Amino acid sequence: MDELLQLGKQILASQPFSTLVGAELTAFSLGRVELAVPITPNLKQQNGFVHGGVISYAADNALTFAGGSALGPAVVTSEYKINYLKPAMGTLLIARATVIHSGKAQAVCRCEIFTVNDGKEELCAVSQGTIARIGRSPGDHA
Amino acid sequence: MDELLQLGKQILASQPFSTLVGAELTAFSLGRVELAVPITPNLKQQNGFVHGGVISYAADNALTFAGGSALGPAVVTSEYKINYLKPAMGTLLIARATVIHSGKAQAVCRCEIFTVNDGKEELCAVSQGTIARIGRSPGDHA
Amino acid sequence: MDELLQLGKQILASQPFSTLVGAELTAFSLGRVELAVPITPNLKQQNGFVHGGVISYAADNALTFAGGSALGPAVVTSEYKINYLKPAMGTLLIARATVIHSGKAQAVCRCEIFTVNDGKEELCAVSQGTIARIGRSPGDHA
Amino acid sequence: MDELLQLGKQILASQPFSTLVGAELTAFSLGRVELAVPITPNLKQQNGFVHGGVISYAADNALTFAGGSALGPAVVTSEYKINYLKPAMGTLLIARATVIHSGKAQAVCRCEIFTVNDGKEELCAVSQGTIARIGRSPGDHA
Repeated sequence: MDELLQLGKQILASQPFSTLVGAELTAFSLGRVELAVPITPNLKQQNGFVHGGVISYAADNALTFAGGSALGPAVVTSEYKINYLKPAMGTLLIARATVIHSGKAQAVCRCEIFTVNDGKEELCAVSQGTIARIGRSPGDHA
Repeated sequence: MDELLQLGKQILASQPFSTLVGAELTAFSLGRVELAVPITPNLKQQNGFVHGGVISYAADNALTFAGGSALGPAVVTSEYKINYLKPAMGTLLIARATVIHSGKAQAVCRCEIFTVNDGKEELCAVSQGTIARIGRSPGDHA
Repeated sequence: MDELLQLGKQILASQPFSTLVGAELTAFSLGRVELAVPITPNLKQQNGFVHGGVISYAADNALTFAGGSALGPAVVTSEYKINYLKPAMGTLLIARATVIHSGKAQAVCRCEIFTVNDGKEELCAVSQGTIARIGRSPGDHA
Repeated sequence: MDELLQLGKQILASQPFSTLVGAELTAFSLGRVELAVPITPNLKQQNGFVHGGVISYAADNALTFAGGSALGPAVVTSEYKINYLKPAMGTLLIARATVIHSGKAQAVCRCEIFTVNDGKEELCAVSQGTIARIGRSPGDHA
């Protein structure tokens, strides 16, 4: 396994909430990340679909990792928007994020979230957001 | 307890992911909702702050409930955006959402997410999004 | 010229604000649109760059046309978000929008906005939004 | 007229596109701005409503001025999202923006856009976005 993916897996493993959700980093290279979440019963909402909060978590985290691949590990998601396209059903949720543009201080990234059912992927949400490097101005988290 | 809040609590309790996160509905009336999430260790990221995915979950769900208070229980979040303002620390996360405008088919809502520490609230994120009524066009989830 | 492009040009020509801005529809097919705006002095802000409002106009309108290619001509932009990537300079602004997902009532679309300088394109903004079909519920514009 | 409003009016007057649209700064203080656009025929779309691009322009510019009131004049809009609530008709468009949170490098702002008809205001769009201070990292516009 390459070093960047190894580093990413360590960071993900150090996030208790990612462990709670059961997320796995399945690909991580410069400007590109893939995060997978096996769909278990406790990730659902009242109608049996994956809860929007899980999809948002996957988008948010994939965006952050994508931005981090360009800006370094000390990054946070500043903002993002997400459009849900259809109810999410299946066995696996996959979030794939890419860097659209990166400067010194922040990166704009995009994420597509798919469900996998019987080996077939289906796009269920799309997201776009800004990842910011932190630590440049101590005490300034905005 | 009033009927709408009682109904809202039942819906929230029927969402396995909301149970996993530990969310509670603390207020629910026409056009207004308050969702609280006690901050436990498993909701955090690697630096000890509340994971953005949890904040997004709270925003998403509060927006949906706010929209549902105007449109009825059969609603989904179509889309939203969120801006994180500062790292979220404290003992409790509170998401307060309101309906800005509601039509027949959808409602535009806003949500403010606060952390509570030593009884003091601090705004940590703001969100805006669209809640759509479902069931009008069977098979059309967009 | 094909019929859809011809129809699109007529619609654009019937928008006084598009005429004021000087926009041209340069491509229009199912799920895909290209809108071009020659950069003239009156489209700029105080530092000589294209005003963000022009870029937003181009994104908004390209998104609407893209959605309209899937949903029919009676559509409006419900919402969108835009990230500006760099100051926009050059001779031409080009907005290219595509449909990501379309249902019966609405379509989620994406738009990339480029500047052209010395024949070289550069991405200056990215946008994502929802286009809604109107006329389904008379009197309900939300 | 107070100094900040006077300065704001000068900046607005130095934006050719704001002159083309006919925008006026009607209030400007720390964390709060009001921008007015008289609704003229050339600001409309094909159905006689104010073009979304005009509403977006007003939101974008009001957000930027609001951010600038907190961060200083050297600012740009990094990103924003807008939800259109209803077709915009009337004699005047008013965009009111406020600062929600401001750090050293950026400010998150909110904007409400109203139409005025027969002296009656009606909310027609809501927006939320990030304004960034420029000039901290020469050459880095992201």
